[in-house]
Amino acid sequence: MTVKLHGDVTSTCTGRVLITLYEKGIEDVEIVNVDLAKGEHKKPEFLKKQPFGQVPYIEDGDLKLFESRAIARTLAAKYASQGTPLYGSTPNEKALVEQWLEVEAQNYNGPIATIVYHLVFAPMFGQTGDNDVAAAQKAKLESVLDVYEKRLLESKYLAGDFFSLADLSHIPYTYYLIKKAQQGDIYDSRPHVKAWTDSLLSRPSTQRWLKLAGFTQ
Amino acid sequence: MTVKLHGDVTSTCTGRVLITLYEKGIEDVEIVNVDLAKGEHKKPEFLKKQPFGQVPYIEDGDLKLFESRAIARTLAAKYASQGTPLYGSTPNEKALVEQWLEVEAQNYNGPIATIVYHLVFAPMFGQTGDNDVAAAQKAKLESVLDVYEKRLLESKYLAGDFFSLADLSHIPYTYYLIKKAQQGDIYDSRPHVKAWTDSLLSRPSTQRWLKLAGFTQ
Ligand SMILES: N[C@@H](CCC(=O)N[C@@H](CS)C(=O)NCC(=O)O)C(=O)O
Ligand SMILES: N[C@@H](CCC(=O)N[C@@H](CS)C(=O)NCC(=O)O)C(=O)O
Repeated sequence: MTVKLHGDVTSTCTGRVLITLYEKGIEDVEIVNVDLAKGEHKKPEFLKKQPFGQVPYIEDGDLKLFESRAIARTLAAKYASQGTPLYGSTPNEKALVEQWLEVEAQNYNGPIATIVYHLVFAPMFGQTGDNDVAAAQKAKLESVLDVYEKRLLESKYLAGDFFSLADLSHIPYTYYLIKKAQQGDIYDSRPHVKAWTDSLLSRPSTQRWLKLAGFTQ
Repeated sequence: MTVKLHGDVTSTCTGRVLITLYEKGIEDVEIVNVDLAKGEHKKPEFLKKQPFGQVPYIEDGDLKLFESRAIARTLAAKYASQGTPLYGSTPNEKALVEQWLEVEAQNYNGPIATIVYHLVFAPMFGQTGDNDVAAAQKAKLESVLDVYEKRLLESKYLAGDFFSLADLSHIPYTYYLIKKAQQGDIYDSRPHVKAWTDSLLSRPSTQRWLKLAGFTQ
């Protein structure tokens, strides 16, 4: 069954879903481009699919779903028996994946999205980003990364010694912060965080997303 | 096996976990009070359990877990065969529960937490809340509730005609907004949202939390 993915492949949220598809070895995928620059995501047709007017949105048989992390969780569960196991291998490991996936959504995504907005997206759309706001959020993100550094001293990945949905979910904005916002120093100064982000960004699934997005050759 | 819940029973995040325990009929629970007013959540002892210095945190056998929504998901899965089924009854229903649980975490929690902070917590701690910020977030929350109103025209609860973790997760802050911040008008003006919040707040699990928190007799 073809999975139809409505989104903008350069966007972080669509990237999260694409990397999940690649990790799970789901190849029967049709991408329906939603042109954010043209405001296609705010048109009535799209709002019927995603009422908040945001990408991504998927159709997988009779399942229609939005929210990138809900899509990622659902694909990881539905295609559990193929590709990378994204939830670990025991119920306790799964619980820790959920915990660190929440940390990503609650503690990491907020500051990093704000920094990238002010340093990358605002200038891209001809607006002036607020460097003070970006700096304040960078300080916030640093205190989150201090917790990660301690955690990654104990295990190779966030939920344990296995790559999971929790790590995966960090990839898109981490790429943007390092390569588009040039703020990689925040990782470089924390050796375990640095090794972890290096390993995340070098995954074949990440590389495949970057290529599709036109960010790499 | 006793579930040990470290938290402040009056707090919204601890409330989310308590209501989940009650819905699942998990009665062997020991509550370990973490006194936020005394800053117990920032002490080294507690930071070993929850490195961000926040409640709640649980111990359930050899599982140690933080992040209220991760805890709620884990309890709902582990105790699937008892109490209220919180994930629906099919994989597609579960996917929709995940979708609306993400909407709660991403679109509902942010604005409502900010409103409650400025109108309730700031004054409670002798600070001055910012009414303009609260008003701006209220406008944001109204546009989220417009989506809910349309959705609840189609189904009794967010993920379908069944109460789920997605609805449950809304309860604590909804209670605070109506009863502590006196902003219930935001629900009253939307008939389906109003019926939904009435049904959430009148659940025996909600009532039991409110009594434990000392908010009702
Ligand atoms: N919580 C949503 C957020 C979706 C989101 O913010 N999408 C962005 C692209 S990464 C978007 O559509 N932005 C356009 C807009 O919000 O108008 C998810 O994870 O799917
Ligand atoms: N995302 C976390 C948030 C936890 C949280 O914000 N807890 C609050 C109580 S509801 C707290 O501990 N506040 C004290 C603080 O942040 O210093 C969760 O859902 O568990």
